[in-house]
Amino acid sequence: MDDLLTERLAELAVGFGANVQADQIVMVTAELGREPLARAVAAAAYRAGARYVDVTYTDAFVRRAKIENAGDEAIGYAPPWHVERMQQMGEQRVAVISLEAALDPAATDGLDPVRLGADQSPVRQAYLRLVMERLINWCIIACPTPEWAARVHPDLPVDRAFELLSQEIARVCRLDEDDPVAAWQTRFDRLTEISERLGEHRFEAVHFNGDGTDLTVGLLPSAEWACATFTTADGISHHPNLPTEEVFTTPDPSRTDGVVRATKPLNIEGTLVTGLTVRFEGGRAVAIDADGGAEVLRGRASRDDGASRLGELALVDGEGRIGALDTVFYSTLIDENAASHIALGSGLGYLVKDERDKQQVNSSSIHIDFMIGSPEIDVDGVNADGTRVPVLRGGEWQI
Amino acid sequence: MDDLLTERLAELAVGFGANVQADQIVMVTAELGREPLARAVAAAAYRAGARYVDVTYTDAFVRRAKIENAGDEAIGYAPPWHVERMQQMGEQRVAVISLEAALDPAATDGLDPVRLGADQSPVRQAYLRLVMERLINWCIIACPTPEWAARVHPDLPVDRAFELLSQEIARVCRLDEDDPVAAWQTRFDRLTEISERLGEHRFEAVHFNGDGTDLTVGLLPSAEWACATFTTADGISHHPNLPTEEVFTTPDPSRTDGVVRATKPLNIEGTLVTGLTVRFEGGRAVAIDADGGAEVLRGRASRDDGASRLGELALVDGEGRIGALDTVFYSTLIDENAASHIALGSGLGYLVKDERDKQQVNSSSIHIDFMIGSPEIDVDGVNADGTRVPVLRGGEWQI
Repeated sequence: MDDLLTERLAELAVGFGANVQADQIVMVTAELGREPLARAVAAAAYRAGARYVDVTYTDAFVRRAKIENAGDEAIGYAPPWHVERMQQMGEQRVAVISLEAALDPAATDGLDPVRLGADQSPVRQAYLRLVMERLINWCIIACPTPEWAARVHPDLPVDRAFELLSQEIARVCRLDEDDPVAAWQTRFDRLTEISERLGEHRFEAVHFNGDGTDLTVGLLPSAEWACATFTTADGISHHPNLPTEEVFTTPDPSRTDGVVRATKPLNIEGTLVTGLTVRFEGGRAVAIDADGGAEVLRGRASRDDGASRLGELALVDGEGRIGALDTVFYSTLIDENAASHIALGSGLGYLVKDERDKQQVNSSSIHIDFMIGSPEIDVDGVNADGTRVPVLRGGEWQI
Repeated sequence: MDDLLTERLAELAVGFGANVQADQIVMVTAELGREPLARAVAAAAYRAGARYVDVTYTDAFVRRAKIENAGDEAIGYAPPWHVERMQQMGEQRVAVISLEAALDPAATDGLDPVRLGADQSPVRQAYLRLVMERLINWCIIACPTPEWAARVHPDLPVDRAFELLSQEIARVCRLDEDDPVAAWQTRFDRLTEISERLGEHRFEAVHFNGDGTDLTVGLLPSAEWACATFTTADGISHHPNLPTEEVFTTPDPSRTDGVVRATKPLNIEGTLVTGLTVRFEGGRAVAIDADGGAEVLRGRASRDDGASRLGELALVDGEGRIGALDTVFYSTLIDENAASHIALGSGLGYLVKDERDKQQVNSSSIHIDFMIGSPEIDVDGVNADGTRVPVLRGGEWQI
């Protein structure tokens, strides 16, 4: 990624994603290899008046050294200052910008999966508390790296792959617009408007039809529709995921019926599931078939009670830039915004207002999104009386 | 530096330098570009039973982004968790290993020196308190990097320069010995023995003679001689500098007389002072001459009252490996151990036992070491009655 695009990406993360305020402390977390964007974010944050930019580099190969060499009592341990830092970050109402890319697989290849799985830092819990209590304005932003590019475009030489991935990320982050922040503001205004209209309709279900799909997804009466914009307890509006294209809700896990054919390949930790079709009955996925990789998804869907039921329903229109690229990015941040999608597994409780509905929200240890939308798929809202309202036709909003 | 030497260097830092204890938390501080040694240190520390290895990477280009872009209120500021971490590190009695190399000059080239000088973090003070109160076992160890190698060997292609610097650091760190830790233990046993003997003699002065030098340096009655081995308040012996070759004391700043000719070029922040001779009268440097760079040293020596008087006197024998290489490393950690040396400027108060002597120790804002020893220079101890005791002849201890 050239310096100009790096700077525009940094400006977007600071000025729109996290929406850094004057005199705020800014935490930047980046795995090694993401230095160019980390430095550009630091410069942009200081220009925006940041009091301090605390760039914390993580090193997956130091983690590897731990998993390979440490005693058992070291696994899952973190020094007290790491946890207290999180608490103080909340007290100081900091901004947090995380640079996202695919990790170098050499950092984890061949490691003992039991030790790796057991090495869960208490820092993660402390951080999630900051998010849940809305104490921080935060943003995860895509950061092109050569390692990631080699994964996405394995048939190209790495410098060409990196150039292509950089162009793709610039495109989906709207950095090719004269004023990317203004372009994103326009996009979010539209997504917010659509969320509100979908909410006002109070549809009982959403129906997908066309190209081998005939699927009805039931909605919970008090579940809201939302797009990825948050506001802190202190009223700082921010955009936690860049890029993002979706409006989403959490469905009724007992009322999905019909057949759905995936419109994009699905990546499950390295296994590509292609030609996927799923049949639902009474909310449960009762048949999972695919040209390749079906057994991996079947395994995941049988993990627990909620793993074969839906936790998320998201709509993406034809203006979304990710789907048009037809690239698998091996990153949920980007891939889940390629098209309208559903997710098997855990639901989004915060979207549900009514307490009885909240208890209905699906619960599971998995959350696997797969793409079911395209311009060829009609999306309708279904009212309680069975009448239908067109929602998406040819990738365009009808409401 | 190949993987085997990197691993041996890491083992030396962990097992001998900081002397990491089972169940200790270990802090590793490294500028970006020192990842191979940082990871090897992490692995070695975990093998030694460390409870956690906290590798903190610093990025001089993030610092640069701050100096270039931040508002004035950001200069010199650090978030509270950085300072509290230091306090907790003291409470937890951690080990600290710092990887030392010359910085890439591009990180600071052209920056406003006033802002750069004013950006002093309170974390530094908090860290010095841990050292002064002997709460941590710590070690600064040389870490070869390509950027450093390019500075030391500018006439070579960078890969050859890096290979040569790696070999030189392996040599001066005694990594070519079958058991480097045992070799260093033998070396420290000898240096400790020499320090004790020098102390027992209670010399009134030390006299350097030969090759254009005829210099007498007066000693304080209660000043001890020492080598670079420390013990924490909890009794953990450790070796704060690797490599090190010196035995040293703090001299009487009022009793240096005669002429000294430097035996190595002196690097003052990039200016090389060559062919240096200094004349002392009554403790004060009254004439500073050189083939090149004299004006830079003259400038430093006139900074304050103590800047033209001595704060350190150190002896290095012919077994020391650094001087034999005849390389300027642009790093005090290594360069000051090349040969016997004296330092203009601040003295080492902790070596002085008597309270009245303590008030005599030289005080200054500078501390500039320069090399005055070689096999051709005889070093004698001078007793109160004027009799002399040979200390070094041809680089060999005589006491």
